[in-house]
Amino acid sequence: MTSPLSIDTLISASWVIPIVPANTVLEECAIAIKDGAIVALCTQREAQHRFVAREQIELPGQLLMPGLVNAHCHSAMSLLRGFADDLPLQRWLHEAIWPAESALVDADFVAAGSRLAIAEMISSGTTSFADMYFYPEVTAGEVAAAGLRAQLAAPIFDQSGCWGSGADDYIHKTLQLRDDYKSHSLLEIAFGPHAPYSCGDTTLSKIATFAGELEMAVMIHLHETAQEIADSLRDHHCRPVARIADLGLLGPRTQCVHMTAVEEQELALLQQHGSHIVHCPSSNLKLASGIAPLQRYRQAGVNVALGSDGAASNNGLDLFAELRLAALLGKVSAADAAAIDCHTALRMATLDGATALGWQQRTGSLESGKQADIIAIDLSAIGQQPLYNPASQLVYTAVGGQVSHSWVAGRCLLRQGELTTINRAQLLRDVAQHWQPRIAALRPAPASTFSLKG
Amino acid sequence: MTSPLSIDTLISASWVIPIVPANTVLEECAIAIKDGAIVALCTQREAQHRFVAREQIELPGQLLMPGLVNAHCHSAMSLLRGFADDLPLQRWLHEAIWPAESALVDADFVAAGSRLAIAEMISSGTTSFADMYFYPEVTAGEVAAAGLRAQLAAPIFDQSGCWGSGADDYIHKTLQLRDDYKSHSLLEIAFGPHAPYSCGDTTLSKIATFAGELEMAVMIHLHETAQEIADSLRDHHCRPVARIADLGLLGPRTQCVHMTAVEEQELALLQQHGSHIVHCPSSNLKLASGIAPLQRYRQAGVNVALGSDGAASNNGLDLFAELRLAALLGKVSAADAAAIDCHTALRMATLDGATALGWQQRTGSLESGKQADIIAIDLSAIGQQPLYNPASQLVYTAVGGQVSHSWVAGRCLLRQGELTTINRAQLLRDVAQHWQPRIAALRPAPASTFSLKG
Repeated sequence: MTSPLSIDTLISASWVIPIVPANTVLEECAIAIKDGAIVALCTQREAQHRFVAREQIELPGQLLMPGLVNAHCHSAMSLLRGFADDLPLQRWLHEAIWPAESALVDADFVAAGSRLAIAEMISSGTTSFADMYFYPEVTAGEVAAAGLRAQLAAPIFDQSGCWGSGADDYIHKTLQLRDDYKSHSLLEIAFGPHAPYSCGDTTLSKIATFAGELEMAVMIHLHETAQEIADSLRDHHCRPVARIADLGLLGPRTQCVHMTAVEEQELALLQQHGSHIVHCPSSNLKLASGIAPLQRYRQAGVNVALGSDGAASNNGLDLFAELRLAALLGKVSAADAAAIDCHTALRMATLDGATALGWQQRTGSLESGKQADIIAIDLSAIGQQPLYNPASQLVYTAVGGQVSHSWVAGRCLLRQGELTTINRAQLLRDVAQHWQPRIAALRPAPASTFSLKG
Repeated sequence: MTSPLSIDTLISASWVIPIVPANTVLEECAIAIKDGAIVALCTQREAQHRFVAREQIELPGQLLMPGLVNAHCHSAMSLLRGFADDLPLQRWLHEAIWPAESALVDADFVAAGSRLAIAEMISSGTTSFADMYFYPEVTAGEVAAAGLRAQLAAPIFDQSGCWGSGADDYIHKTLQLRDDYKSHSLLEIAFGPHAPYSCGDTTLSKIATFAGELEMAVMIHLHETAQEIADSLRDHHCRPVARIADLGLLGPRTQCVHMTAVEEQELALLQQHGSHIVHCPSSNLKLASGIAPLQRYRQAGVNVALGSDGAASNNGLDLFAELRLAALLGKVSAADAAAIDCHTALRMATLDGATALGWQQRTGSLESGKQADIIAIDLSAIGQQPLYNPASQLVYTAVGGQVSHSWVAGRCLLRQGELTTINRAQLLRDVAQHWQPRIAALRPAPASTFSLKG
């Protein structure tokens, strides 16, 4: 008989959804973790023979699954959560969001907003996220301190802005940042050309060249609205997907965010290039952009990840809300209640998200050798009983607030609902006392709050 | 100076959304309750002068609003929550739900299922609900014991079933039940003709006659799917709404549940008759029935309430999920981000729901003289900071689990998240030990759960 292996952590729970193999819920199982990686998934009895763990965590009534991958966020915009809701898209941008950003965005804003978003994401089960915002070097610092896994896309526009003087400056800063974080185990830098309408052909071609040579990911807002397509036809005589394909920007590391309006030949292009769609259902509904026909995307062989978008549009970063909505909208848009079943929705929020970021060997499923990016969810709520199928209960009833534990590369970031790497009280005090009054003064809408104070 | 008035309860909170007046959030305000009714809304300072309260409840960081009205539910079906998900509608009904119901439904099943649903609804902020299910007399007992406000529609089909031998028997039992509960302050009995396709003209005409004479409400599933309309055209040479209008069943106390497919002249009919639409967005998406164009309904002058539908389809009864979805879908289906704003969504879930049940003088807003049907919601979650607009934060980020207190007619049913009229532990034990194993054995789908037990 071989002697037991010393490991760091052994986690036992009532159910495990490993994502791979597909459509599987394991019962009364344990996960062994050593040096940040998963050593084994096995029965709890077997684990007692095979391992000696420095730390044992028992979670009866709870479910373990891979941490969620939020494949599109603007984390610093959390400070603008609910700043201007219920406005038409163009007024929202021109009268609310852009003026506020001009007045506010600097390194301090990005630090505070990113920290708030990271705290929310950890609390609601996200262990990896992909971000696009100004001052990505500041967000990088916050991510590294908090311990999440992240891809940070440095934003690129032709116009100058708070973070740089134009496309070449943004590209230069992106490459600089990539060098700074090249050896970081949890962070990756990507190109973030904002959208086809805010970047000219020269900019998009340059990015294609650098991204191809350096094997860097590219995140771009694409086909968010019908208007964007009409404008492209007017200005470039072709639709945006065709244009970025012609410019060489459509590749296996390209993340096309939104894609609410799409034709069959465009799906064929995405599939041929191995590009990814990032679906942000709440944001698409709230800004009235459209409903992405998810089942068609998947049937065309295109990988689809899920994103929350920023808190200024969605207003939360709870990926459980997004995966529920993706499943529900996927059914109705396919006119088929069997479309986007619960296991598919869970996979989109985990492994398919990891694949979109190029991290499918690293995270997104609970398999030996992968990084220990794991969350535990408490399924004891009244509204989840009886519990015939933990997978469907997770998709159709769970909310981020039920996440009790979170580990990234084996490090515990959330323990019984408490953040371990962020001081929650200090964070909320900073937001409430420093940022909220300052930003509230800039709100465009007439306040609907009336005081009765005597 | 007048001497202070003795009252039962004084509740103070950081914010109050009274629904009437519209678009209003009050700050640092208090609600005085006496004999189950609201005596006054005033500033906290004023309240200290005007009232002497037997009980004072202070809820800093929390928001008070009218309790939510769930205008369509099949509460006993909570025992079938997640029993058969991700199936096409016809297979779901014929292979899963109906066979299970034939095998299971009796008075015990309805008692246990209703109790579970009531516990979930209280916990997530619902204070009034409208139900349709077999053995409504059993649900009535559970509702009365728990202390909610409810309209129970006794189901009527032409076919015989577990609760009766056919339409005349169901109608007779409905009238009997109405007499039994005529003097109950929180309960009302309605007619529940299941749908135009399960009730013939004779049955629908009889119901119209009795309902008109006795001023009873009528709840009917209507225009849920395109198929139902096609079948009606084939069998009755007219669409269902036109048919029930011809039969005299469309009146100011008629609640038309679903209405995903609708033509302009049908909206005009509903508006002329003062009938109500009950929108169940999650269920309509999950069963791929369609997306109701909410903004069109409201612009046509038709009152729209919100419902969860039963937990076998939805799978939860959290009305916060429904009002968020109603707002989001209302925007995208109108192609206008300003459609169905946050105050409109909150009103649909409260006063408009009360109006659909004919209770707009009694509940649905926080006004002097109305019944004290009130909930408190904790807005301190990380994902709700900063808090510029409590109304939009409620709609776009709140979940039922944040409800801390609930009162119906001044009686506290939930205190700091704990049920006061239902024994939670005993309820969950009964579901887990008695019902879950018995029902799980009837599941049609191949189990996706694999045990690793050694």
